[in-house]
Amino acid sequence: MKPGERATAEGFLFTDEYQLTMAQLYFRMGMHETPALFEHFFRSYPAYGMHKAGYCINAGLEWLLDWMAEARFRPQDLEYLRAQRSGAGEQLFDDDFLAWLSENGNFDSVSLQAIPEGRVVHPNVPLTVVEGPLALAQILETPLLNHLNYQSLVATKAARIHRAGRGQLLLEFGLRRGQDKGANAGARAALIGGADFSSNVGLSHILGFPPKGTHAHSMVQAFIALGGTELEAFQAYAEIYPDDCLLLVDTVDTLESGIPNAIRVFEGLRRKGHEPVGIRLDSGDLAYLSIQAAKQLDAAGFQDARIVLSNQIDELVLWQIISQIEEEAPLYNVDPEALIRRLVYGVGTRLITSRGQSALDGVYKLVAICKDGAWAPAMKISESLEKIINPGHKAVWRVYDQRGKAEADLLSLREENPRTMEPLVMHHPMEYATRRELEQDKISEIEPLLVPVLEDGKLVYELPAIEEMRSRREADLGRLDPGVRRIMNPHIYHVSLTESLWDLKQALIQSLSLKPGAGGS
Amino acid sequence: MKPGERATAEGFLFTDEYQLTMAQLYFRMGMHETPALFEHFFRSYPAYGMHKAGYCINAGLEWLLDWMAEARFRPQDLEYLRAQRSGAGEQLFDDDFLAWLSENGNFDSVSLQAIPEGRVVHPNVPLTVVEGPLALAQILETPLLNHLNYQSLVATKAARIHRAGRGQLLLEFGLRRGQDKGANAGARAALIGGADFSSNVGLSHILGFPPKGTHAHSMVQAFIALGGTELEAFQAYAEIYPDDCLLLVDTVDTLESGIPNAIRVFEGLRRKGHEPVGIRLDSGDLAYLSIQAAKQLDAAGFQDARIVLSNQIDELVLWQIISQIEEEAPLYNVDPEALIRRLVYGVGTRLITSRGQSALDGVYKLVAICKDGAWAPAMKISESLEKIINPGHKAVWRVYDQRGKAEADLLSLREENPRTMEPLVMHHPMEYATRRELEQDKISEIEPLLVPVLEDGKLVYELPAIEEMRSRREADLGRLDPGVRRIMNPHIYHVSLTESLWDLKQALIQSLSLKPGAGGS
Repeated sequence: MKPGERATAEGFLFTDEYQLTMAQLYFRMGMHETPALFEHFFRSYPAYGMHKAGYCINAGLEWLLDWMAEARFRPQDLEYLRAQRSGAGEQLFDDDFLAWLSENGNFDSVSLQAIPEGRVVHPNVPLTVVEGPLALAQILETPLLNHLNYQSLVATKAARIHRAGRGQLLLEFGLRRGQDKGANAGARAALIGGADFSSNVGLSHILGFPPKGTHAHSMVQAFIALGGTELEAFQAYAEIYPDDCLLLVDTVDTLESGIPNAIRVFEGLRRKGHEPVGIRLDSGDLAYLSIQAAKQLDAAGFQDARIVLSNQIDELVLWQIISQIEEEAPLYNVDPEALIRRLVYGVGTRLITSRGQSALDGVYKLVAICKDGAWAPAMKISESLEKIINPGHKAVWRVYDQRGKAEADLLSLREENPRTMEPLVMHHPMEYATRRELEQDKISEIEPLLVPVLEDGKLVYELPAIEEMRSRREADLGRLDPGVRRIMNPHIYHVSLTESLWDLKQALIQSLSLKPGAGGS
Repeated sequence: MKPGERATAEGFLFTDEYQLTMAQLYFRMGMHETPALFEHFFRSYPAYGMHKAGYCINAGLEWLLDWMAEARFRPQDLEYLRAQRSGAGEQLFDDDFLAWLSENGNFDSVSLQAIPEGRVVHPNVPLTVVEGPLALAQILETPLLNHLNYQSLVATKAARIHRAGRGQLLLEFGLRRGQDKGANAGARAALIGGADFSSNVGLSHILGFPPKGTHAHSMVQAFIALGGTELEAFQAYAEIYPDDCLLLVDTVDTLESGIPNAIRVFEGLRRKGHEPVGIRLDSGDLAYLSIQAAKQLDAAGFQDARIVLSNQIDELVLWQIISQIEEEAPLYNVDPEALIRRLVYGVGTRLITSRGQSALDGVYKLVAICKDGAWAPAMKISESLEKIINPGHKAVWRVYDQRGKAEADLLSLREENPRTMEPLVMHHPMEYATRRELEQDKISEIEPLLVPVLEDGKLVYELPAIEEMRSRREADLGRLDPGVRRIMNPHIYHVSLTESLWDLKQALIQSLSLKPGAGGS
């Protein structure tokens, strides 16, 4: 993309065509400034092929807000839309609508509530609630989903990998496999969800993290092609980076050449008063090789040297590597627990693309619209029961049991307060007969999840640092039942409705099914 | 991301940390300006879980060139790198290296050859060849792979979907599910690979395509919530867009409400002298519903109304939809071929994320480096035979048989000319004993695939329009054997080496394995 094209492709027109044609329709019908309420939520956990997640980590809000603050309909955008033609060759967007967009084409009139970044979230729970003039809230659909779907997807994957790796240091290496500049959003989401650092220099810079890395095979290859050796390449690296010496040992032969050469270099470093950082393994059987590497390093007196594993790592691979180490290390007189504690993971492709499920199915649905000064709930009846939305202005609560564990997320009408309901009735979102009752004395806390973020376009929320998002993540994960955190076949967390919300939903389904000109007539 | 941060996160530092630490090492060793040759290639076709591709479509070059032309090491970048600390708390990048980067931190000294965008390409064939000062060619690795891997991945998926849809109109709808601004690169790649249009407004604008779209459920919902009906929503749409009337019919009930209402509106349009465009189906059994929709539309006299299918479409789903239509349509007296010819496909998530395989495994490897004024071939010996690279300065050829079909891609030494070899010997890239001989009179054409693009940073290549890339794609696909184009279990296309290149590779493997200080010693 040419530099001059960026403001066009990434600004206010970073949306779908139908948002603009619908906006003009609303304008023509006099509905464009009618207050409307849209909710963003996802419908199902990422399934990764066969092993479904039991939770997601919310992410992306701050970058969405940055985009909204910057996006403005420009004179060039107007010229472009004015040039669009209908099927009959006429101007598709009329001048009066374009004039209105020129005046109002920004998000300064939008209010927004959201669940903060880093928090554990679940399906069908409103994560972001947008209130604003119908036309602008409609145009916002595509960029909002774009910014939030992907970062939540990657933050979730990072959390899973981080847990599967038993909390060992996790490095994000995915820049070369992300979607163009979107790789920066992936690295940010990884840092929120579970990665400790990223190799991405520019992104690390703007977020205030030191970027991390080792070296590539090409460095060793270059030395060899010029008549040198792997050992000389390692020696050069150690000389220049004596306190950051982490050597990639698989360019020639890991066990016969790479590790012995690394150890010779490490011995030289230690004689000069420096401690090596460790080695990196990027091919082969990473479990077996890490055991052999540990054995060689230990024998040479480098028990603290880290062993970085990279190459197609994800949560299942880590689970298998650690299981294999536990079984195989004792055969070589290597302590498996000590070995696991010195491991570091470099994760590229499979994190930044969320291998197995590369999109979160987040959607943005109209749930209410202002009619004669009052909010009228809106709904889409669907052929599949799961896709029927929960209508109206709502509040979102997390209910904790007496152990302090999250018991369920509960959606209520906005004006309801579940803390005063005795017993608290939690209705299944789809099934008529399924409801649970909970006495208040079985509940340790009922926490509202949505916080006000924008009021009429004005930021009323203190944007947290990534460190704070990480603390939230760990706190929320700690309050999930272990069964919900399992990386395969997790226990399904409950998302329920209050009875009043359930009743509203049923009434609306019934009225829509009976409406003349709608279904069934 | 804040607007002021973009130049940092998307500029020269849009790379991995280890590229910079290696560059400093080369600088320290006096190797940083040594001419080096790197090749970019992918190792295997996307496997999409179970059904592997038989070809890829090359894409991304122009946007890489745009990035390279713009990326410059800035004073702010220098300040940032100067602030980085080693493990011992010292300055990680020294001032002399940073001064050199300030002078030379751009790609004005790099030469580049490439296979043009839109062409069919295969594994282990150099798609991009970079020649430049070692340090800069090294830093380029990450951004080059970032720009080329993803666009080639999506162009390939788009070509597969386009073919599975029998060449019917294909619309790219993926903006909400792409990776942040990377979604623009995805839409571009889709347009190169097989999509006719995109819903992405800004991206369509900069590429000169009209963006396409229909309307969303929320439009119908808004009317209903305000006391109106689906029919009134459709009527409003038809009134405002009489020559672009494409109605989404599944908000209430597709067969009982949506299609009958659409037909009433279409009748009104026709009375006023306008022809409707058609309807869109976004849920349910798309094959069955499209048959029923065709039946209703035909009975009402709208045989030409298009039926747009969206919702989780990819090449396998299209294959199944079309198979089902062929079997089921006759049961309802609907002509399956006529129905298939009126279908249009809107493809979102599964195209922009390349469902089943969301990253192409493109790599960038050092293959030669200048030593005493001559090129020394470089190699990485790997534990897996497939990962051993083909060394040295090479040329790339496509050999066509007498039918004009592509027979194989052939890698040769740069100075070789396969057109003069009689017979032409094509050696398997890994297996010792596997070679084929082809008489020149069995060959209709031997075509060089790489074209010069940059010479010392100067563009020496006329960048083709997307229309030209599409023509190349169709021409190349037409010259593949149908077995190679199959969407499942394709015939494996041959990529071979000349005997001289094979010999060089074997000699290098042997010399590396025997080198003291390397493997085996």
